[in-house]
Amino acid sequence: MSEQDSIAGEDSLIQSYFAPLAAGFAGAFGLGDDCAALSPEPGHDIVLTTDAIAEGVHFRARDLPEDIAWKAVAVNVSDLAAKAARPIGYLLSLAFPQTPDRKWLERFTDGLRAAQERFGIVLMGGDTDRRPNAPLSVTVMAIGSVPSGRMVLRGTARPDDLLYITGTLGDSALGLHLLSDAGLAIASLDRAFLQQRYLRPEPRIGMRDALLARARAAMDISDGLVKDLGRLCRASAVAAEVHAGSVPVSQPAQRLIESEPELRHLPLTGGDDYEILACIAPEHAAAFESAARSAGIPVTRIGSLREGSGVRVLGLDGQPLEIARPGYDHFQR
Amino acid sequence: MSEQDSIAGEDSLIQSYFAPLAAGFAGAFGLGDDCAALSPEPGHDIVLTTDAIAEGVHFRARDLPEDIAWKAVAVNVSDLAAKAARPIGYLLSLAFPQTPDRKWLERFTDGLRAAQERFGIVLMGGDTDRRPNAPLSVTVMAIGSVPSGRMVLRGTARPDDLLYITGTLGDSALGLHLLSDAGLAIASLDRAFLQQRYLRPEPRIGMRDALLARARAAMDISDGLVKDLGRLCRASAVAAEVHAGSVPVSQPAQRLIESEPELRHLPLTGGDDYEILACIAPEHAAAFESAARSAGIPVTRIGSLREGSGVRVLGLDGQPLEIARPGYDHFQR
Repeated sequence: MSEQDSIAGEDSLIQSYFAPLAAGFAGAFGLGDDCAALSPEPGHDIVLTTDAIAEGVHFRARDLPEDIAWKAVAVNVSDLAAKAARPIGYLLSLAFPQTPDRKWLERFTDGLRAAQERFGIVLMGGDTDRRPNAPLSVTVMAIGSVPSGRMVLRGTARPDDLLYITGTLGDSALGLHLLSDAGLAIASLDRAFLQQRYLRPEPRIGMRDALLARARAAMDISDGLVKDLGRLCRASAVAAEVHAGSVPVSQPAQRLIESEPELRHLPLTGGDDYEILACIAPEHAAAFESAARSAGIPVTRIGSLREGSGVRVLGLDGQPLEIARPGYDHFQR
Repeated sequence: MSEQDSIAGEDSLIQSYFAPLAAGFAGAFGLGDDCAALSPEPGHDIVLTTDAIAEGVHFRARDLPEDIAWKAVAVNVSDLAAKAARPIGYLLSLAFPQTPDRKWLERFTDGLRAAQERFGIVLMGGDTDRRPNAPLSVTVMAIGSVPSGRMVLRGTARPDDLLYITGTLGDSALGLHLLSDAGLAIASLDRAFLQQRYLRPEPRIGMRDALLARARAAMDISDGLVKDLGRLCRASAVAAEVHAGSVPVSQPAQRLIESEPELRHLPLTGGDDYEILACIAPEHAAAFESAARSAGIPVTRIGSLREGSGVRVLGLDGQPLEIARPGYDHFQR
C-alpha cells in the first residue's frame, strides 16, 4: 500500500469513513463518543443479536469489500427479521490484519450504506483495531424493536403447527459451490443468480407483520434446514416431519442439481440461505399465507410438527431419508 | 487436546458453558434463540457500546482465561461507567483458533461470572465460531441504561471546566511492562499490584451518581491520558491544560518510576487504566468531590479547560512538556 493511500490514524479512519454512516442517528454523536444512546419506542422491547463473519470462514479472501460489508449486516438483520423485530441500527466491530487502504474502505462503506438503505437502519457505534496475521473479521451487533413481549421465539412451537419456509433453499450453498468451481457447466444467468444469493443475502424483513400476527415460532435458516429445524424442535420439545419434495428449490438450483446430482442434498443441508422457517397453527395458515402474499414474499408449506423429538425428512417414496450431515457446525468436522 | 476434553458441537458448547451465565435474564431465552429481548426501563435511554480484545494485541497468549474474560467485559463496562449508565448486560462474540478444551472454558466462564457479579450484569446472547490460524478474539457489546437524555458525553465540556481523574494513572502500562520484563528489580507486592491493574481492570461503576449529577462531560481513559483528553478537547472544541505534577500516581508506580526513570511518561501516555476523566463546572466542584468521596472513589483535579484547541501538559517548572507519543493507536506506529 502506498504512503498516499494509508490512513493517518484510528480517529481519522472513523471520522472519514464511518461517521457519515451514522449521520442519520443523533444518538451516535457522530461516532465521537464511546457509547450510543437509543430512546426506546414506548411499549416496545429492544431486540439484540450478534453475528461475526471472518475471512476464510464466512467469506473468501477474494470477495468484494462491498459484498463482505453487506453480508455482515444482512446476516444480523435476518435474525431480527425472523423474530418479527423492526431493524433500527447496528454496532460494528472491525479487525483488520493491516491498515486498510482508501479504495478498500470506500467500497466497504458503500456496501454498508447499501445495506443501511435497504434495511432502514443506521450505524450507531463501533470499534476498530488492527491484528497482524489475523484474518479480516467483521462483527455486527444489530438492534431492533418489537411490541413488548411479542418477539417471535424458537421455543414456542406446538405439535400441531404447520411448517412454512420463505423463498427457496439451497441457492446460497450451490452459489458457493459454483464460486469454488468455475469449471462447472451452467448457464451464466443461473450461475449469476446462485452466486448472488451467496454473496448478497436478502433478509426477509418484509415478513414482519405476517410473523407478528400469525407465527407461533420462527427462526432464520443460516446453517441448513435440517440442522436449524432440529434446533427449533429441541427448543420447543417437538418433532418435525418434512417432505423433501415440498422444499422449495429455485429453477437455477433445479437445473444445476439435475446436472450435478451429488449436490441434491444442499436444499436440505446447505447454509447461508437466510430464509425464514415459520411454525403456524393450522387455523392461521390461510391468514399467514395471505399476509405473506400481501408482502410479496413466497411461502411454501414443507411439513408439520408433532409430539416427540427429532427431524424426519421423507423422500418422494414416503420413506425417511438418511441425512449424513444436517448442516454447518464450527466445532464439528 | 484429548478426545475426552473436546466439545461435541457449537450448540452443546453454548448450552454447557454459556447458558448458565444467562440464567438470570429471562430475555436471553436460555441462549436458545437468535436474539435477546430487553424491556427498557420507562423514562430511560438504552446505552450501547462495543470493544473487542484479541490475543497478541490486547492480551498475551499466556494470560489466564479468567483474566481474558474479565478484561473483555470490564473494558466495555468502563465505557458505560464513564457515561453515567447503569450496566445491564452484554452480548459476547467469541472466535476460537481451535475447539477449546473443557478446562479452558471453565476458567473463561469463571472470569465472566466474576465480572457479572461485580458489575451487576448478565449474559444476554452471543455468537461463537472457529477460525483456524486466527488469534483468540473476544468481542463484547455492553448494554446499559441512563435516564432519558442524560448520557454524559465527550462533546459537552466548556472552557471553564475543571478536569478530574479517578484513581491513579499509569499503573496498568507499568504492569504490562513488568509482565514483559520479569528481570526488573521491584518489591513483589508492588509488582503484583501493578500487574493486577493490567490484568484485572476495575471500571469505575461507582461514579455513576456523581457523574450524572455533576459532570458536564466525561470519558474513560483507555488509550492514555494525553491522547484521550485530546479526543475530548476535539469533541468539545476546547483546549486543556494539565499539570503533570498533579496527575495521581500510585505508590508502587512512583517507586518503579524512581528506579526506572525512562518509564516516567507512562502515567501521561500509558493505556488500559480505565479511570474516568470528568469535566466539572467550577461551581459544582465541591459537590462532585463530595459525591465521589461518598462513593469511596478518590478523584484528583489535574487541570482545566479553556478556549482554543489541543492539550498542554505543564511540567513542574511550569513549562510545556514535549509528548512524543500521546497514547496508543492501532493504525499508527
